[in-house]
Amino acid sequence: MVVMICGHFQLSPLSILSSSSSSSSSSSSSSRLQLSSSRCSMMDTHKQGRSKFLEFPYVSAPHKNLMLDLVSKVEDRFQSQLLPCTLPPDVQYYKSSNGTSQVSLHITPANTHSPIDFVMGSWVHAELPTGGSLDITSLSAYLNSSNDAPNFVFELIRSSPTMLILVLDLPPRKDLVLWPDYLKTFYEDTKLDTHRQALEKIPEVQPYVTSSLFIRTVASPTAIFVRIQTEDDGGERIDGIIRDHIDRISKQVLGIWLDDCACAERDVGEEDKAYLRKRDGVIRNKTIEVDLGSSFPRLFGPEAAKQILEAIKEYFTV
Amino acid sequence: MVVMICGHFQLSPLSILSSSSSSSSSSSSSSRLQLSSSRCSMMDTHKQGRSKFLEFPYVSAPHKNLMLDLVSKVEDRFQSQLLPCTLPPDVQYYKSSNGTSQVSLHITPANTHSPIDFVMGSWVHAELPTGGSLDITSLSAYLNSSNDAPNFVFELIRSSPTMLILVLDLPPRKDLVLWPDYLKTFYEDTKLDTHRQALEKIPEVQPYVTSSLFIRTVASPTAIFVRIQTEDDGGERIDGIIRDHIDRISKQVLGIWLDDCACAERDVGEEDKAYLRKRDGVIRNKTIEVDLGSSFPRLFGPEAAKQILEAIKEYFTV
Repeated sequence: MVVMICGHFQLSPLSILSSSSSSSSSSSSSSRLQLSSSRCSMMDTHKQGRSKFLEFPYVSAPHKNLMLDLVSKVEDRFQSQLLPCTLPPDVQYYKSSNGTSQVSLHITPANTHSPIDFVMGSWVHAELPTGGSLDITSLSAYLNSSNDAPNFVFELIRSSPTMLILVLDLPPRKDLVLWPDYLKTFYEDTKLDTHRQALEKIPEVQPYVTSSLFIRTVASPTAIFVRIQTEDDGGERIDGIIRDHIDRISKQVLGIWLDDCACAERDVGEEDKAYLRKRDGVIRNKTIEVDLGSSFPRLFGPEAAKQILEAIKEYFTV
Repeated sequence: MVVMICGHFQLSPLSILSSSSSSSSSSSSSSRLQLSSSRCSMMDTHKQGRSKFLEFPYVSAPHKNLMLDLVSKVEDRFQSQLLPCTLPPDVQYYKSSNGTSQVSLHITPANTHSPIDFVMGSWVHAELPTGGSLDITSLSAYLNSSNDAPNFVFELIRSSPTMLILVLDLPPRKDLVLWPDYLKTFYEDTKLDTHRQALEKIPEVQPYVTSSLFIRTVASPTAIFVRIQTEDDGGERIDGIIRDHIDRISKQVLGIWLDDCACAERDVGEEDKAYLRKRDGVIRNKTIEVDLGSSFPRLFGPEAAKQILEAIKEYFTV
């Protein structure tokens, strides 16, 4: 099972679809003329990749609307800090040679004034041998070592009209045993667990235990890992649950992340920064290995998977 | 809800009930004569407390048999290393002034040749205002810093004939993110998760999420936290589940702990030892505060609870 295709991503508000200049302020004026040609090309690639990403072409309306809203919420907050996606075009969007699998990947790093390291968004569509399809959409955001607050991870995995897995978490960046204040600040005081509790009251919602012990290990104690399985109604009930529950809960959790984590004023000393870089590095490397590294070759073949993963690794390096 | 009354305990095999000399080899011969009087008194106290502990007087036969077998398994392995319980008599067994709550507590430290720091076992019986009773039995074992392997925690909480909570875990003593080899050695290679999976296949077994984020944090990724709720059959089905499933699974997990953790040859350097002492210290302090510190005053009144907790703290200090 593909889990935590660590979705992250994005540049500036959705309105950028009709504007190519919103992030030009991040270039140095002395090199602007020289770079203008490659910059235009890069911006074109960015715009095309971004446009493809925002299509979310295979998921239902409530699912797509939620993704667009989450993307927009992150962009609105960090608009001026996010830089264009510089992934190669065939990594930003890739379709397998037999046409059965597609992936759109959008990674936007942030400028040096930002607490954000990068944001990554993705969708995957794969036709299944059984006749159905697997659709994964994700959005996640990694902070840099100027801020020790948790990251943000959101993923929806729909393996049939009547089966959905939701992963929603603010994974900690410190060992919560050794830093009980961190547990209190980011997980207890924010009442994060109330959102997990609200979701688990829905009759069709069951806890989901990923087979990866590593992914269980990096999850926070308030992580939402749930499986929603409904009667065979063509997907109507699951779309209702997305619209009436997951939509609100995801936005509330993202709101906590934006207000109390990403934008928190944290005093991070040099020793803490070194610790964060080390721990972040292990998590990112293992995430690629455990999650993407096991699923992408199956979906896209070993060669394309390797190319995509190598491109992602550049951003995952701390 | 009382959870993880970190049960640990015990001296030598159950046969010690009829023998008072099995641990005398741990005393120094030069002081043996001087100490003989206080030693006899201590051994008497130990024997009485131990005898009371092993009664498990309020739980069903399969529940009691399992507790005795687990105790015996630990004792058999560490027989010669375990020292008498030196808790004051009124901490080894305490009954509330109104007679509605009782606790038996047995803590046995180990000698300096042992990887064990101490073993603690307990049972609690409390009459509930509703007319039923709450019964908790526990056994846990903490290693010292000569061995960095996980600890052992086992607890059964029966709040009615038809409701049981089981906690069974080998909580890690290192941050599993920073020590992926530790995760592999103790949790992946030992196939610990298969026991959790086996248990969760039983229809009445549901995952149990403790309200304490701290307890979630110290748990391993293969921790068994389950709630078993059955039809109103007087407790027959739950006793069947204990006898046919929990009994075997608990012994298998304890076997893994004995063979692959407590008796593992681990190379622990001075830096690692300091890290273990720090992390163990936080866990032990918080365990008392979060778990026992919140439940004991309610069960036994603030004064008796304070006395019991102060006595336990001596062992919990790293």
